[in-house]
Amino acid sequence: MKLLRYGDAGAEKPGMLDADGTLRDLSGVVSDIAGDVLSDEGLAKLRDIDPASLPKVDGNPRLGPCVGNIGKFCCIGLNYSDHAAETGAAIPEHPILFMKANSAIVGPNDMVMKPRGSTHTDWEVELGVVIGKAAKYVSKEDALDYVAGYCVINDVSERHYQSQLTGQWTKGKSCDTFGPTGPWLVTRDEVADPQALAMYLDVNGKRMQTGNTQTMIFTVAEIIEHLSGLFTLQPGDVISTGTPPGVGMGIKPTPVYLEKGDVMELGIDGLGVQRQEVGQDA
Amino acid sequence: MKLLRYGDAGAEKPGMLDADGTLRDLSGVVSDIAGDVLSDEGLAKLRDIDPASLPKVDGNPRLGPCVGNIGKFCCIGLNYSDHAAETGAAIPEHPILFMKANSAIVGPNDMVMKPRGSTHTDWEVELGVVIGKAAKYVSKEDALDYVAGYCVINDVSERHYQSQLTGQWTKGKSCDTFGPTGPWLVTRDEVADPQALAMYLDVNGKRMQTGNTQTMIFTVAEIIEHLSGLFTLQPGDVISTGTPPGVGMGIKPTPVYLEKGDVMELGIDGLGVQRQEVGQDA
Repeated sequence: MKLLRYGDAGAEKPGMLDADGTLRDLSGVVSDIAGDVLSDEGLAKLRDIDPASLPKVDGNPRLGPCVGNIGKFCCIGLNYSDHAAETGAAIPEHPILFMKANSAIVGPNDMVMKPRGSTHTDWEVELGVVIGKAAKYVSKEDALDYVAGYCVINDVSERHYQSQLTGQWTKGKSCDTFGPTGPWLVTRDEVADPQALAMYLDVNGKRMQTGNTQTMIFTVAEIIEHLSGLFTLQPGDVISTGTPPGVGMGIKPTPVYLEKGDVMELGIDGLGVQRQEVGQDA
Repeated sequence: MKLLRYGDAGAEKPGMLDADGTLRDLSGVVSDIAGDVLSDEGLAKLRDIDPASLPKVDGNPRLGPCVGNIGKFCCIGLNYSDHAAETGAAIPEHPILFMKANSAIVGPNDMVMKPRGSTHTDWEVELGVVIGKAAKYVSKEDALDYVAGYCVINDVSERHYQSQLTGQWTKGKSCDTFGPTGPWLVTRDEVADPQALAMYLDVNGKRMQTGNTQTMIFTVAEIIEHLSGLFTLQPGDVISTGTPPGVGMGIKPTPVYLEKGDVMELGIDGLGVQRQEVGQDA
């Protein structure tokens, strides 16, 4: 299934895409794509519904983040061997975890707003993993059973804030609108192998990032094993699993950063595409 | 006012302490101590109530975290000049921000559970600041207008996870139960000067930390100015503002860490006390 949330920001309704790509309203069935709805039981109930029995949604509504009430927005840094090389960083011994403020989360096609004065805002296409049930001390062998599904995330990053404002990456990752998430939550039964997904990101129509989850240093299962040894991953938590090469700060000889009016388009095999225009706070 | 939440974990009811220290039930008035209730208008409505008109709560119920539905749990590192010296770190140029997972938040007297295999779990008494209304690009002169109130936080920290698991402090800060918060949210009108609060932490009855918010490197107002320049602070967000000297890892010649069965007791002037027994996951 391709689950989504549509409507005005903060007032999104749950929906699903039917086999024809038509948006169907789920608000008569569940209140949100969140929490218990993401469990195996919750998803099984949705799977039992004939999409044709659901109301069609007219027009072309805004899409919100594909999961509601995201608790933890966990991000893994330097998780592609080729991206680590591009930034000059060593291959990490464990998954590098940082947290992105959940207030950064926006819809897949919302504007990305550079903060006031920002000059080093950069892009990062990433595979997002949505947790479906509470995971604590989970082995990598069992880890994927705890996944509700996958989505596209743009882990927008202000490089100066990330590294020049005294330690800890979270400052450069947590700005408002720096977490476009969606368009859809694609349930895990429709993703045959999360370690074989091609992905890309274009800026103003030019291909900047090309990658494949095959080159992840730590697989989705290994990341869940590691994080669930630290704390409980809860239903609706999201893990963004790192970015492949091609970010702006890696461009030689001169890094390139986003300017007002730039357009980012990004996608992952089977998970849909995002499109964001860049603005800047006055 | 001293606002609080009482009852079983995950099913807490809102309450307040009356002038005699009696717990009064607020669940007929508000659904939680969270969100809009924390605004100036929300708090004014509670202030208009005669506490004697509210039902007394019998017995000695568990206290939960004093704020519900905490969005961001922002923490400031190395914010006391004497604590920075104790850890051998330089005085930071900007407030050091890290995020603590909001799933780490527990009540003020709940057990603190060391993760499986943890051997470096440490204590940190801290002043918590609860945001009352959305703050973006706020000056330090106006910053305290955005504060609903203050509380005690124990920023429990696993030092090995914090520094030895490949970068970013959040790993050592986010373990389940590592964020005791409360007992009360003391509204800002009852805290004459947040930069003149004495604080302490005892382990097994022995005084380990003694400090005062006077020695903060960055004041509460300066922290809010800095963070609100990065992202929106939202009602119910909590900022833990750093710890004074006396943490276990700073003890010479041999650092001391928490053992199963240890008891931490900590408090801040006017904000109440916490007491946690230490356990460990099997």
